[in-house]
Amino acid sequence: MIKITLPDGTVRSFDKDVTPYEVAVDISEGFARNVISAKFNDIIVETTTPLTTDGSLTLYTWRDDAGKKAFWHSSAHVLAQALEELYPGVKLWVGPAIENGFYYDVDLGDGVISEKDFKTIETKMIEIARGKHDFKMRDVSKAEALTYYKGKNDYKVDLIEGLEDGTISFCDHSTFTDLCRGGHIPNTGIIKAVKILSVAGAYYKGDENNKQLTRVYGISFPKQKELTEYLHLLEEAKKRDHRKLGKELELFTFSPKVGQGLPLWLPKGAALRERLENFLKTAQKKAGYEMVVSPHIGQKELYVTSGHYAKYGEDSFQPIKTPKEDEEFLLKPMNCPHHCEIYNHKPYSYKELPKRFAEFGTVYRYEQSGELHGLTRVRGFTQDDAHIFCTPDQLDAEFKEVIDLVLYVFGSLGFEDFTAQVSLRDPDNPDKYIGDDEHWKKAEDAILNAAIDKGLNYVVETGEAAFYGPKLDFMVKDALGRQWQLGTIQVDYTLPERFDLTYKGSDNEMHRPVMIHRAPFGSMERFIAILLEHTGGNFPLWLMPDQAIIISISEKYEKYAEKVLNLLENDEIRALADNRNETVGKKIREAEIQKFPYMIIVGEQEEKDNTITVRQHGGEDIGTIDVEKFVNIVKDRVNKSLKTFK
Amino acid sequence: MIKITLPDGTVRSFDKDVTPYEVAVDISEGFARNVISAKFNDIIVETTTPLTTDGSLTLYTWRDDAGKKAFWHSSAHVLAQALEELYPGVKLWVGPAIENGFYYDVDLGDGVISEKDFKTIETKMIEIARGKHDFKMRDVSKAEALTYYKGKNDYKVDLIEGLEDGTISFCDHSTFTDLCRGGHIPNTGIIKAVKILSVAGAYYKGDENNKQLTRVYGISFPKQKELTEYLHLLEEAKKRDHRKLGKELELFTFSPKVGQGLPLWLPKGAALRERLENFLKTAQKKAGYEMVVSPHIGQKELYVTSGHYAKYGEDSFQPIKTPKEDEEFLLKPMNCPHHCEIYNHKPYSYKELPKRFAEFGTVYRYEQSGELHGLTRVRGFTQDDAHIFCTPDQLDAEFKEVIDLVLYVFGSLGFEDFTAQVSLRDPDNPDKYIGDDEHWKKAEDAILNAAIDKGLNYVVETGEAAFYGPKLDFMVKDALGRQWQLGTIQVDYTLPERFDLTYKGSDNEMHRPVMIHRAPFGSMERFIAILLEHTGGNFPLWLMPDQAIIISISEKYEKYAEKVLNLLENDEIRALADNRNETVGKKIREAEIQKFPYMIIVGEQEEKDNTITVRQHGGEDIGTIDVEKFVNIVKDRVNKSLKTFK
Repeated sequence: MIKITLPDGTVRSFDKDVTPYEVAVDISEGFARNVISAKFNDIIVETTTPLTTDGSLTLYTWRDDAGKKAFWHSSAHVLAQALEELYPGVKLWVGPAIENGFYYDVDLGDGVISEKDFKTIETKMIEIARGKHDFKMRDVSKAEALTYYKGKNDYKVDLIEGLEDGTISFCDHSTFTDLCRGGHIPNTGIIKAVKILSVAGAYYKGDENNKQLTRVYGISFPKQKELTEYLHLLEEAKKRDHRKLGKELELFTFSPKVGQGLPLWLPKGAALRERLENFLKTAQKKAGYEMVVSPHIGQKELYVTSGHYAKYGEDSFQPIKTPKEDEEFLLKPMNCPHHCEIYNHKPYSYKELPKRFAEFGTVYRYEQSGELHGLTRVRGFTQDDAHIFCTPDQLDAEFKEVIDLVLYVFGSLGFEDFTAQVSLRDPDNPDKYIGDDEHWKKAEDAILNAAIDKGLNYVVETGEAAFYGPKLDFMVKDALGRQWQLGTIQVDYTLPERFDLTYKGSDNEMHRPVMIHRAPFGSMERFIAILLEHTGGNFPLWLMPDQAIIISISEKYEKYAEKVLNLLENDEIRALADNRNETVGKKIREAEIQKFPYMIIVGEQEEKDNTITVRQHGGEDIGTIDVEKFVNIVKDRVNKSLKTFK
Repeated sequence: MIKITLPDGTVRSFDKDVTPYEVAVDISEGFARNVISAKFNDIIVETTTPLTTDGSLTLYTWRDDAGKKAFWHSSAHVLAQALEELYPGVKLWVGPAIENGFYYDVDLGDGVISEKDFKTIETKMIEIARGKHDFKMRDVSKAEALTYYKGKNDYKVDLIEGLEDGTISFCDHSTFTDLCRGGHIPNTGIIKAVKILSVAGAYYKGDENNKQLTRVYGISFPKQKELTEYLHLLEEAKKRDHRKLGKELELFTFSPKVGQGLPLWLPKGAALRERLENFLKTAQKKAGYEMVVSPHIGQKELYVTSGHYAKYGEDSFQPIKTPKEDEEFLLKPMNCPHHCEIYNHKPYSYKELPKRFAEFGTVYRYEQSGELHGLTRVRGFTQDDAHIFCTPDQLDAEFKEVIDLVLYVFGSLGFEDFTAQVSLRDPDNPDKYIGDDEHWKKAEDAILNAAIDKGLNYVVETGEAAFYGPKLDFMVKDALGRQWQLGTIQVDYTLPERFDLTYKGSDNEMHRPVMIHRAPFGSMERFIAILLEHTGGNFPLWLMPDQAIIISISEKYEKYAEKVLNLLENDEIRALADNRNETVGKKIREAEIQKFPYMIIVGEQEEKDNTITVRQHGGEDIGTIDVEKFVNIVKDRVNKSLKTFK
């Protein structure tokens, strides 16, 4: 008698050993057809593995991440078989599933794979897949395994030598065998669509002193339609790459002389940043925040006090020495120690709390040059940082207010699809955390209450809290369905302790305030990158660097164009006039690329009638109207896109 | 026959050797009575020194800086004599004139001078002065000089040993003799008023391994009234010390943990800064500037290119290394190299110039901790920086526009009394400067034309230009009559060369743009310090952190106070309500210290009549009026203090 517990807590009993597939059939035949992977007692198993003890079983379909992983891992086997057939003598190393698809590292000897070979590989893979070959695991002894590969594949021999006898298994399908730990879909027939995406060099064992192997990247799907959609998404993502758009829209640039990962913001980008900052400043002011300004360096001692130096010091930008004195400074990697010292400049009564100090604080963190990527991985960035210092009793209300602010920010910037992750303590390991139990409970309740009260779509991750306090992170989905981590709200009991922050309570005793760290954007750089990729550069109208461009049909109408420009500027509409001696066609094409929301064309008729002809980017033409009407159209659209806050 | 040329170019002839005093008498007896020092062929001489060759003579009175210097240098001799008489066995080291007064470093043996002794020293000095003793210089041989001091004063012996025979002179007056190079007033009788200001320890030769001497600071004047005025000024300056006001008004603070010379801006100070920045941003936008944002570090290479590393590298904050790569970064000491790289991000046609890039750029410069002083000497500060890249033909117009902007800034901030200093090339040393002659001429003409055209009160300093271009500096006088250097405008030919900046001219050839560096405030830190000392914290109303405070007579009127606050906020008047459970007297006293321009008192009568009672800081009480009327009073005053620009 075997008892299998399912994730929903129901228990199914079977007379004898049962496979995950059979359990699925027991649930429903239709469901079983979609099951492609399984986890038994926290270990990934085949759907055909006999379960011989009681235990917990999770069944996965394509829609689960674990299902995709099994699908792509199995596809890597099919890729390897195809390569063996197409490139006789090829030597395989390893081939894992990755976030999107899979790869296999192979030694082609003198052979080369280039883009023109992709189609052949894909065809071969589909041909193999159509054979509906079962993936079959079998245990082998270390001696057997070594014998199998010896003389044929030194890479696998080397791998096997590192393994313990009794833990080694092979996977067979069709005529192909691979050293493998398991985790496959039932058979190759489920793989219906395959795309080889790219090839790259990859050093054996990742060590550049070793031989360079060929890494073949691919992706596969259970339906052709899904592949088509994925390729379309890739295409779209390429077009929306923030590095490409940042250049086209003249928002930012990098200079090798200034240094990698250190963006230089061009006028339009700086204006965009400032507009975003002002938007948040206005909301923060309403919410009772006060701006402060702190330097970009601090004595090493400051970070020794905060504990950051012990944790990150060695991997960071190294200390700055001075020529004549025995002092050492660090580029600040975060603003919190400075804000603690600002808090500390005077004593507080509980009546004066909460204090909410905000700063657009530029911080510097060392990243290896290979890790840098546009504005999403940089070495210097500006956090829309704030720290709230409050009494434990105020935590609940403060947390809710921060969520309101974050939701206002997301709403006004067109991020409609987001989830929240609440990270709590691991109740079995109380020693991992600092701060007393009662405060932790209060803080965790505050976060959960706030999440429920604000109707957030949230998941709870037990054991994911930082050692200094619980937190709430927001994950947004962009227009291409990609997930990004944005704003974060964290409760902190450590820094108030380390910086000896106090306030006098109503009991006339001294107490420690609680600290909330929060940043709705996260960082200006990363946020603008995500916003660029989300909107493709078509920002909400209120945020657009230039809301309209005035195109004069010829130099004769330059004066009228300037007149229109003046009228728009008086009504605080951001516009510019293109009076270059170029054809209207060229001016319009260039304006399209720059994504001006409105193109205003002025010529003889318009000047005579005192009107303008308006085209809308990505929308219907508005036609010929007077300036006042246009101003109202713009103002209406701005008001609609900006949500209300307080 | 001796020919003496005076500064106005006139030449006077004398039959035989003549003293400066005799030349002065030849000009006018009245003038001669006021002459206290002289310079002959660029060397400071006594008024009694016989002039034996033709040459140029400048005669100084108390009103000249050189006159004051001679006056205070001579007073130091009198101080030394007084100390010798009062402290037998005292050993003198050196006693120069300084910016305000003079000091003498002396070894008192076991003796001590404290504040209670100041009066005795002053009385003794006046007693000596009244003797009207002439200061008489005489040349002595090195041997004679050594003999005079040997066994009596090792400090002087050491000094003399470092001198060359034939260059040594003594000065006698009354019974006192000192080793001295000269530069005295005619006699002690001119010194009418003396004040010993302070004593301090000073290491012999400034080396902390040597013995500590006593430095006695004093100041003296030709009239008692001038001393009284000076002491009043000192008192006033102490009250207006920006470090004191900054604390009282809660504008900024320093933290030993963050580091010396690194200000932390508190909410009110940050708001003040932001208001100043926004004020300048608005004007700059009208003047066609574009904001950019650049990082606070740059690769060492960047400063090697700019030439700053060779010049300042060793005395600056040292390079920042990274843990894993062979890179070195520097904290940026200025923004120009970054702005050059921003300019360089794309090619320009002459039609696109001028480009005007502005940034409130925070820079870091190492200063020894002993040199740090409040906000005027710091290690990190924010420049209101901008760089204009223009064609040589545009220089004239650009320079005038920058002057307009600077005058607008000074006017709106209440600095009415200022002069300009134009620094030009030394025409005799053309090799000291880079850039071709024609461009220099153009640039110098542009500056001079602009200064004349804008009606500036300016002086020309030939030979004071930087090696890279001529400049114009503004010196403002504050309410206490002290001079401060504020805004600067500099022309630069070097950086465009070093960074290979180009534009395509109308001739289709590539040319170098000219660069203008300019900063009307100079730095936010220093400017706010000066503004604090100039205004004593009573900023122009438009700039005040809080324009009004509402004081409720008791808790009963808290609601009405909040209502008034709301009305004011709706009209964009910055105010806050003091509803603490304190006496009205205490609230008013505290509000006085905080310098709120308006105190609004609300109680029973006001609530009933829907009015407010208004007191004005440092002005007449306004009395009981309705809120609307108050709003109009505030708006009128704001509009009057802000000048108009464009």
